[in-house]
Amino acid sequence: MAGPSEKSWTLLKASVQPRTGPCGGGTCQTGPAVKPFPAAAWRLDPTRGGPFCMGHVKLHIPGPVEVSERTFRAFCQPMIGHRGQGFKDLYARLQPKLQQLLYTRRPVYLSTSSAWGVMEAAIRNLVKRKVLTCMCGAFSDKWYDVALRCGKQAEPLQVPWGSPIRAEAVDAKLATGQFDALTVIHNETSTGVMSPIEEIAALKRKYPDVMFIVDTVSSMSAVKLPFDELGIDVMLAGTQKAFALPPGMTVFVCSEAALERAATVPDRGYYFDFLEFQKNAEQNMTPSTPSIAHVYALDAKMDEILAEGLEARFERHRRTNQMVRDWTARHGFTLFPDPGFESRTLTCINNGAKPGGRVVDVPRLQQLVRERGFLIDGGYGKIKGKTFRVSNMGDETEATMAELLAAMDEAMKLL
Amino acid sequence: MAGPSEKSWTLLKASVQPRTGPCGGGTCQTGPAVKPFPAAAWRLDPTRGGPFCMGHVKLHIPGPVEVSERTFRAFCQPMIGHRGQGFKDLYARLQPKLQQLLYTRRPVYLSTSSAWGVMEAAIRNLVKRKVLTCMCGAFSDKWYDVALRCGKQAEPLQVPWGSPIRAEAVDAKLATGQFDALTVIHNETSTGVMSPIEEIAALKRKYPDVMFIVDTVSSMSAVKLPFDELGIDVMLAGTQKAFALPPGMTVFVCSEAALERAATVPDRGYYFDFLEFQKNAEQNMTPSTPSIAHVYALDAKMDEILAEGLEARFERHRRTNQMVRDWTARHGFTLFPDPGFESRTLTCINNGAKPGGRVVDVPRLQQLVRERGFLIDGGYGKIKGKTFRVSNMGDETEATMAELLAAMDEAMKLL
Repeated sequence: MAGPSEKSWTLLKASVQPRTGPCGGGTCQTGPAVKPFPAAAWRLDPTRGGPFCMGHVKLHIPGPVEVSERTFRAFCQPMIGHRGQGFKDLYARLQPKLQQLLYTRRPVYLSTSSAWGVMEAAIRNLVKRKVLTCMCGAFSDKWYDVALRCGKQAEPLQVPWGSPIRAEAVDAKLATGQFDALTVIHNETSTGVMSPIEEIAALKRKYPDVMFIVDTVSSMSAVKLPFDELGIDVMLAGTQKAFALPPGMTVFVCSEAALERAATVPDRGYYFDFLEFQKNAEQNMTPSTPSIAHVYALDAKMDEILAEGLEARFERHRRTNQMVRDWTARHGFTLFPDPGFESRTLTCINNGAKPGGRVVDVPRLQQLVRERGFLIDGGYGKIKGKTFRVSNMGDETEATMAELLAAMDEAMKLL
Repeated sequence: MAGPSEKSWTLLKASVQPRTGPCGGGTCQTGPAVKPFPAAAWRLDPTRGGPFCMGHVKLHIPGPVEVSERTFRAFCQPMIGHRGQGFKDLYARLQPKLQQLLYTRRPVYLSTSSAWGVMEAAIRNLVKRKVLTCMCGAFSDKWYDVALRCGKQAEPLQVPWGSPIRAEAVDAKLATGQFDALTVIHNETSTGVMSPIEEIAALKRKYPDVMFIVDTVSSMSAVKLPFDELGIDVMLAGTQKAFALPPGMTVFVCSEAALERAATVPDRGYYFDFLEFQKNAEQNMTPSTPSIAHVYALDAKMDEILAEGLEARFERHRRTNQMVRDWTARHGFTLFPDPGFESRTLTCINNGAKPGGRVVDVPRLQQLVRERGFLIDGGYGKIKGKTFRVSNMGDETEATMAELLAAMDEAMKLL
């Protein structure tokens, strides 16, 4: 991939003036900053190859996460026609990289949409009788509602927020024989719970006619998800989570059984028709005009991911996640997820949502951390303020996480 | 908007090495280039503020079109959370600019999808009984098929490719009372035909219960489209056409009547539910995570558009389009569209698709033009090779169009 030289990019970035207005010129997240960004907001980040930040608050929310300069360089390459050989070449060279990441021989599709587009698509393409929606947080709960809005029969399998989905409960439901599909979110971003996908996926052998639809939005690329071995039917993720790309694209993969099922389901439409994705994939294209910039960036990101090595990448996420868990314990907080089911890409810290541990003023904590150049999340939905969340997704290293945690340490002293 | 200085950007671009491999490193469109890009592929483009091209073939296909460095600069600003105040501020400041462009008081929605997503959405949201699909080219023809795939009743109103949709024919169909919606493509990109939208829209007064869904994919922002005055119900466009942004986002606007209709239509789903767009717009947000980069770029582009002035912009497109039409006549070709219905954003040149005028080897012409640094289109669908297309959408000026046409002149000499 041709691109600007490191030196020029550094020159470019160095020339950017820090923003001095409130909120860094409108880019802060949770309300006006009390003062202009301090010098600390300017940092040399060796993983990014240049001065970084431009007064911007670095994102440690659970998506979108921070996008590296390297990724932006790939993202802003000149446009090409999406039906020409140039695009087909790009698509073709990206495919095996994505297949390697997902441990699959199936084609990996690219949808120009957020993950919800493909989450809805999976319902429209695969549900004929009734879908079991496994619910353990804001996003998995919402999937039930989305299924109903598509005019499909759906039944909830609800567990308390903070708890995972377990195979035993799923098995009991599927045994009724009512369902031809199920939805489960592997890493429920709102609660920081990672459900044991292996034990759930193992049920597929028992229920081969049930379509297993798995949202791995905030875990794909950070955790090993061997699609073929799991034997599930659909797996999807948005690019703005662990891939650390800007939002706007969803990566997904379907089993052959899923395509066979889709072929029997009416009213799939066109834009999200899985068979259209397959038909176009065979020609290294997408059904509709794709976000070419995202495809460029994903291609570059996959090079980075494979250069790091998949196991090394998974381990890095485990280590950086452990750093946040250690911080949590050091400051007297507890974790919101049930023990043993904590996500490795984000940490959902209990702050009164359930008994035990310390409770602080979360908006104040966020503000103090923001003044130090970092954005952490203040909790989502009904546990907003009663939890807070810190992401270690994407390009974060032990060094960059240490910077964040130092800022959080400082903030805690001022609470 | 903060961003890199002009000097740094120029430095960055100047440092980029030209690509010397075949196809400029995989970015050429229609097959391997016969030789490395010549020095001519490097040019100083005053509209772009720096050395331009990097060996890239400049796009004059009817979308995606060339994206300026200024737009890319906006496109690659640091990410922000899409539920935070920073995004809400961005959304809120963009709204009145889009409303000004479309001469509307209605909110203008942003969909993270290609235009087909919203074209399908309009069917799903608005059709209860039967939709009349006005068909005059590849894209409008396909809309009929998409309606059927959504499980809706549809009836074609087909005219020959090259002819426009006229109000009289639409009136005759609507008079049957069978329809509660119609689709029409204002500027059919495959044939270069611009249908007279004013006379079609005037029928809305006679058929207030029929939803008028108008695709302005390749005309919006280049031609005056006063939404409120037209009185239509849905108008939409992809960002990679006349807006000259990268593909990946669709801009659309709905009448109040459209929202009222949608409220009565079941199975709208979630991702493209018009009521969700409205509900979120009221809070300066989108229903799902948007492509934030596109929103940044659109905001910057709207500043450019309004600084140029809408009338001046429309006139510029008229003039640059006339330059292509003049070139066509000068070389003995005829135009494919019926006289009086030629698009102002792209020119579809007859090359044997219908009687009259010159006929050349289009792939050879494309190749010769490509070797000179420009990509033109070789015709679409059933008129591929029997027509060819040249776009003047986006940022093109008389100066940049003159460069293209000079290269096309040279190419013609070698045919």
